[in-house]
Amino acid sequence: MSETVIEGRNPVIEAFRSGKEIDKLYILDGCQDGPVMTIKREARKHDTLIKYVAKDRLDQLSETGMHQGVIAIVAAYEYSEIDDMFELAKKKGEDPFFILLDNIEDPHNLGAIIRTANLAGAHGVIIPKNRAVGLTATVARTSAGALNYTPVAKVTNIAKTIEELKEKGMWFVCADMDGDRMYDLNLKGSIGLVIGNEGSGVGRLVKEKCDMVAAIPMKGDIDSLNASVATGVLAYEIVRQRIN
Amino acid sequence: MSETVIEGRNPVIEAFRSGKEIDKLYILDGCQDGPVMTIKREARKHDTLIKYVAKDRLDQLSETGMHQGVIAIVAAYEYSEIDDMFELAKKKGEDPFFILLDNIEDPHNLGAIIRTANLAGAHGVIIPKNRAVGLTATVARTSAGALNYTPVAKVTNIAKTIEELKEKGMWFVCADMDGDRMYDLNLKGSIGLVIGNEGSGVGRLVKEKCDMVAAIPMKGDIDSLNASVATGVLAYEIVRQRIN
Repeated sequence: MSETVIEGRNPVIEAFRSGKEIDKLYILDGCQDGPVMTIKREARKHDTLIKYVAKDRLDQLSETGMHQGVIAIVAAYEYSEIDDMFELAKKKGEDPFFILLDNIEDPHNLGAIIRTANLAGAHGVIIPKNRAVGLTATVARTSAGALNYTPVAKVTNIAKTIEELKEKGMWFVCADMDGDRMYDLNLKGSIGLVIGNEGSGVGRLVKEKCDMVAAIPMKGDIDSLNASVATGVLAYEIVRQRIN
Repeated sequence: MSETVIEGRNPVIEAFRSGKEIDKLYILDGCQDGPVMTIKREARKHDTLIKYVAKDRLDQLSETGMHQGVIAIVAAYEYSEIDDMFELAKKKGEDPFFILLDNIEDPHNLGAIIRTANLAGAHGVIIPKNRAVGLTATVARTSAGALNYTPVAKVTNIAKTIEELKEKGMWFVCADMDGDRMYDLNLKGSIGLVIGNEGSGVGRLVKEKCDMVAAIPMKGDIDSLNASVATGVLAYEIVRQRIN
């Protein structure tokens, strides 16, 4: 198991509260403010070893450069299984709602998408093993704690996973400019929302597996929304249709 | 177009006097001599934010190594006037739709929001002079070209600007968790969408000026969406209502 670095006050507090096993906690020597005292209390409660270190040491450990005086070393974020997502949906008594990412490369986008998935009530995020970014410290930080609650599964082949999930009764919609206006599609029921790569969009093979292609209305002069914004807009169109 | 760093006393004074739009002014903490006092006077006259910093920080920002205790960051792009936004709406035969940002600090968020504004058909983005991030090179890059089309205006006081625009017949909706569900609000007509700071949300004074408070439905375990994702979700609710 590899080590993961969690940086910054809120992410570290979230990690404790969600029951993550923290191996080591580094705190800037002399730091005494409220959030740091909260972290120390959590550490005592969980018998976590605290090391008080100089800023240089923290800078060295930091992957994001934004440690705010606190770094926790935990066992790598464990990936979930797709079955965990079905389980979560069942527990909530809801139709499964998954978000599938066809090669998101920017860790800030992946983090923001996991955050959005959590708040839009999606039961999990599915990412491919190859090329795409995985669950790094930057992703954890950008997810604002959502990574502790929303399962993320890694699969070998997104197209093949879509096929398998269709057999379990799920429908798939991918985002693409040449699709039907999202408001005109029926996005209710068990659904997988497929978002493509930042530059090249959804791959041809993946797109062919989808039941629907949804377009966000574009009134502007440029090509496309940021990938995490597009995910938010589409995920909330699904939320709206589920509510109504 | 890149962010411009102007270093040294005379060059900075010259920049002010020639009418350059200076986003941020860094002054060596404790510096009190004549030329520096002149620069501070110019900054006050132009409502420019001054940051007093240590020598290390200036050395880091400096490209020439000859900053003499003063560095000015010039906007990478020219700011527009609010009248330009009304003009754009009129030209398109649409009700004005502006996005107002109450202290967005992250340049990636500002860039993504300008990108979203362009594609959602907003006629401009309004940002405050103080504290918030301005039009830096990172913002320009993250906007994916939208900064070339969507006007961005800088105002001294967002609350006061809202008051002035209300007199011109605009309605204002701000984003806040304790508001009414966005689907239940009437967001048609001439509208300003107000988005708050990444950490602290919309300020109390600004919120009091708004006619409506809109909440994005939150089904998750964490607090809030990323600011640029929230802007996208709300902007597209406005798009949806305008279409229907």
